Amino acid sequence: MSFNTDFKNGIVILGAGNVATHLSIALKKANFSIKCVYSKTIQAAKTLALKVDSHYTNEINQIPVEADLYIIAVKDEIIEEIIKHIKLKYGIIVHTAGSISMNVFENRFENYGVFYPLQTFSKFRDIDFSTVPVCIEANDEKLEKILIDLAKCISNSVHLIDTEKRKMLHLAAVFACNFANHMYSVATEILNQSDIPFDLLKPLIIETAQKATDSDPQNAQTGPAVRNDQNVILKHIELLKDKPEFEKIYRFVSESIYKLNQKTDTN
Amino acid sequence: MSFNTDFKNGIVILGAGNVATHLSIALKKANFSIKCVYSKTIQAAKTLALKVDSHYTNEINQIPVEADLYIIAVKDEIIEEIIKHIKLKYGIIVHTAGSISMNVFENRFENYGVFYPLQTFSKFRDIDFSTVPVCIEANDEKLEKILIDLAKCISNSVHLIDTEKRKMLHLAAVFACNFANHMYSVATEILNQSDIPFDLLKPLIIETAQKATDSDPQNAQTGPAVRNDQNVILKHIELLKDKPEFEKIYRFVSESIYKLNQKTDTN
Repeated sequence: MSFNTDFKNGIVILGAGNVATHLSIALKKANFSIKCVYSKTIQAAKTLALKVDSHYTNEINQIPVEADLYIIAVKDEIIEEIIKHIKLKYGIIVHTAGSISMNVFENRFENYGVFYPLQTFSKFRDIDFSTVPVCIEANDEKLEKILIDLAKCISNSVHLIDTEKRKMLHLAAVFACNFANHMYSVATEILNQSDIPFDLLKPLIIETAQKATDSDPQNAQTGPAVRNDQNVILKHIELLKDKPEFEKIYRFVSESIYKLNQKTDTN
Repeated sequence: MSFNTDFKNGIVILGAGNVATHLSIALKKANFSIKCVYSKTIQAAKTLALKVDSHYTNEINQIPVEADLYIIAVKDEIIEEIIKHIKLKYGIIVHTAGSISMNVFENRFENYGVFYPLQTFSKFRDIDFSTVPVCIEANDEKLEKILIDLAKCISNSVHLIDTEKRKMLHLAAVFACNFANHMYSVATEILNQSDIPFDLLKPLIIETAQKATDSDPQNAQTGPAVRNDQNVILKHIELLKDKPEFEKIYRFVSESIYKLNQKTDTN
């Protein structure tokens, strides 16, 4: 016996966090049936299950064994633990993690892969899943195609990316998302302390992101660091003298901007 | 004799770089007359002058002395030099720099101020100036009002911001724009080396900026650093072992994300 390629025996979601929530909702909207939501926290499982019209459980051995697809969307560090305990008859099993190899499933399952949606998800915020790049990997070509077809039901941006590339992509995403966002956080802290409303920075943040994605970020760079304007840089460092943490970031990032620019100029 | 509050004797633009270009074009569109564009580089002066239907010169003593407004939009480090040499009869003089005090004009001019447009400008890219926050400062209240009224002709976001606040705002802007953009640049470098198209990151970059500006950046933070997921962090540092520059940024920014989050959680 084998899984149904139309997933008519349903999908099990392991996890009830941000990725699990947005992915389940997208699958449900595309008319897939979510059979069960599992989370260690029963309330989290219930909350998500209600949204996608599914059963739920906080006991791993209560998960149905006859679903067609099992999607592990939990914190990276508990993926291996979950894999040890999950039982299934014939279904496909995938995880959604950027940094975890596909071979974490090896020798335990017959049909496995990775279904990595590359986006920053927060529960409080709706996402148009059709714009979310989904990176697919599978342990054989037939399964690759099945997972690609599934991903295409919820996204217009589906890519075959192997484990090594996916790891680099995830690392790049940490810079482009989490680290860029931290720069906004530092900016907000600086504004708060001077009683300046964050609203003043919003058009700048949006335009910076749009300019970088419309051309390329190195070409789009402006400001004192890329001009190596030491006059302004030293004034800024002086303004940060009570914030050693931010001063350190200021120095390092400014140097790095200048160096990267030099490298590009001489190429 | 005094300047005309409707600027009918025209505006002189000193500088022909990104800010000078976008600001002149916005003023021209709002039906102000650009009387002269000055730049040390005659070709740059000519290029901008053609766009705004103006005279141009590369000789500072050829600048007309009877204009109503002189806007200095040059690199910060040459503002003082320009101020020493410029002669005017009655006009208002302003600069557009985030980091330079208004009192750079003191004892030299009667009517002076600051006209700081808070945006990242590139020549290759159009900007809807009506969305650009303009920060105004002037040496008396009457002039403040005149400059605010002028700014309102080109922008829907006009703010009275004094020198000290403007400096902090400019510093915050460097983090939110230049430093965030550098995080995109590092991400691009990482992708290039693995032959992964930058397109895959674009929805993430846009969503990160939108989420941060729709709520607040600290609340919007996701990823391994804010979760203190050492497992992922150590793997990423390992992937950067041939890039000591990026590794350093990775470590510092990850630590800073975690610390800022701890601080916020305990507040």
